[in-house]
Amino acid sequence: MPHIELANNMPGIVGLMMFRPETAEPLNALAETLLRADNSLSRGERETIAAYVSNLNECRFCEWSHSAFAARQLEGGYDVVDSVKRDPDEAPVSPKLRALLAIAAAVQRSGRDVTEGDISAARNAGASDVEIHDTVLIAAAFCMYNRYVDGLGTWAPDAREAYDQMAEGIVEHGYGASLKNPSDIIG
Amino acid sequence: MPHIELANNMPGIVGLMMFRPETAEPLNALAETLLRADNSLSRGERETIAAYVSNLNECRFCEWSHSAFAARQLEGGYDVVDSVKRDPDEAPVSPKLRALLAIAAAVQRSGRDVTEGDISAARNAGASDVEIHDTVLIAAAFCMYNRYVDGLGTWAPDAREAYDQMAEGIVEHGYGASLKNPSDIIG
Repeated sequence: MPHIELANNMPGIVGLMMFRPETAEPLNALAETLLRADNSLSRGERETIAAYVSNLNECRFCEWSHSAFAARQLEGGYDVVDSVKRDPDEAPVSPKLRALLAIAAAVQRSGRDVTEGDISAARNAGASDVEIHDTVLIAAAFCMYNRYVDGLGTWAPDAREAYDQMAEGIVEHGYGASLKNPSDIIG
Repeated sequence: MPHIELANNMPGIVGLMMFRPETAEPLNALAETLLRADNSLSRGERETIAAYVSNLNECRFCEWSHSAFAARQLEGGYDVVDSVKRDPDEAPVSPKLRALLAIAAAVQRSGRDVTEGDISAARNAGASDVEIHDTVLIAAAFCMYNRYVDGLGTWAPDAREAYDQMAEGIVEHGYGASLKNPSDIIG
């Protein structure tokens, strides 16, 4: 049961966005820019960072949704995302993404935990300043989305299929489209 | 020294927003909606929540800016903001704002730390569902802004006057205006 009366029974952030469309708009615009706009990091890589941070924050709705969104846009699908969440050092990802995931893990603890060493490691693995910037902001943004979703006590479907169905909508139409027709997106 | 080459010497989030205007736009739109749009919580109260959470995250640029923005929009000015940061239970604020600050402190630790007790206390002090929602989202958003600012190693001016000057611009023109003419806003 959510902590507030949402007047809808949608799960996770979807129910919150229907409750408060004024804040949904910039929240969706931010997700669209960070996770889907043109970028030298692929959509699958950026969704993997989002799923990884959501798992560190133990936010199940966000972890499972962004795992589904990553899986659908990554060669290797769920195997890659699941192995990143288990241990990025052992996961079959590029050295650059591995170094960016280490930065994301530091940001999840505290912005003040990012070290010069984390940054040099990413740079040595080929990361650009924009990629480092975007990784920090994606990790920071999921420290917001995760707290928003759990801080209001929203519910999360148990079945992976529900998230896979959401992924179809997000991958095809982008963030925010689900608010216009949520019954199409979430089963 | 920031961790990346910003090609400007502006402090805190201002330098980051000039570096990456694509993400600055939704970040400013979110701040504008949360902290300045019409709301039954005053602008001063919402900025106090922002300053309080930024202090808990030990993000000096955000703490000092939002303290200045709060002070300028609160009866009681810096005395009230500073006492909230010292101890909300002893601060001269309404019982409703005190209960909302307790929710914000829980969100700062983890969304999963917000209890039914925190919510009932806020409701008993007169908080509406929208006010509870907005408090959770403001606290969550500052867990993002704070990590963004510190995760990229930005610098923060020492002098309170620099923040008071920024406050003039924000209070009069809103979030995002500083990007159009930063030299007007930040001394």
